[in-house]
Amino acid sequence: MTPDAMLEHWQGHRRLTRRVIDAFPDDKLFSFSVGGMRPFGELAREFLRMGVPMLNGIISDEWNQSTAADAPAKAEILRRWDESTVEIDRLWRQIPAGRFEETRTAFGQWPGKVHDLLLYVIDNEIHHRGQGYVYLRALGIEPPAFYER
Amino acid sequence: MTPDAMLEHWQGHRRLTRRVIDAFPDDKLFSFSVGGMRPFGELAREFLRMGVPMLNGIISDEWNQSTAADAPAKAEILRRWDESTVEIDRLWRQIPAGRFEETRTAFGQWPGKVHDLLLYVIDNEIHHRGQGYVYLRALGIEPPAFYER
Repeated sequence: MTPDAMLEHWQGHRRLTRRVIDAFPDDKLFSFSVGGMRPFGELAREFLRMGVPMLNGIISDEWNQSTAADAPAKAEILRRWDESTVEIDRLWRQIPAGRFEETRTAFGQWPGKVHDLLLYVIDNEIHHRGQGYVYLRALGIEPPAFYER
Repeated sequence: MTPDAMLEHWQGHRRLTRRVIDAFPDDKLFSFSVGGMRPFGELAREFLRMGVPMLNGIISDEWNQSTAADAPAKAEILRRWDESTVEIDRLWRQIPAGRFEETRTAFGQWPGKVHDLLLYVIDNEIHHRGQGYVYLRALGIEPPAFYER
């Protein structure tokens, strides 16, 4: 898989995640959950703390997750989501070609090849978004189709 | 990402999915769900119907999902899981090098580049496994760690 294909794969998943965020009623996004797990709004904030900060780290070796502060409102989460979408496209083009095969320690804690670190960010989003699908169903809301990106 | 890295990525996820299947009590695997969704045992059967059959299709252009019949028992699902693990390793080595960039229509329905079709199978497993994590939590069971593969 080429870097371009991986970026398109990620942004396709991010478009779906945006629809899942938007499917939650405002008052449920940060309050509703099942089995004592985190509400979906908190998971969305986690995605924001992982995406752009991971790319910044991969490019500059400065690892900082503090760029996404608390935003307990759907409109604010969606606004940050759209900002991140543009930023991810912009930063991706700055990753040197050979970097994907190099090893980094993300945020001082997670060592791995750069392509695996990026896949982890994508997989983490898919994993927790699946959790969000259950929350929506439990709320009686039809989630967006998984295969549409 | 190289084909070898993608196989290892997939098998790592499959090892985690196996632990999630095994974490369900026998009597809950095919009966318990949240929000009217499918029980996790049915999702595990879906994974079995997608993995080896997708590889067979990619290699031979014969698309057949019937290899995984019903198996409403945890021990039987795990047995088939382990068989599929060996089979996936074996079939992966038969994929011609250039095939990943070619386009196929999986099971007569889903067109796409072969590497995207394979990623879809992996993503679908991650997605529904996230759903299984919620079921386990709702049952009061601690799911396996997501980052362990």
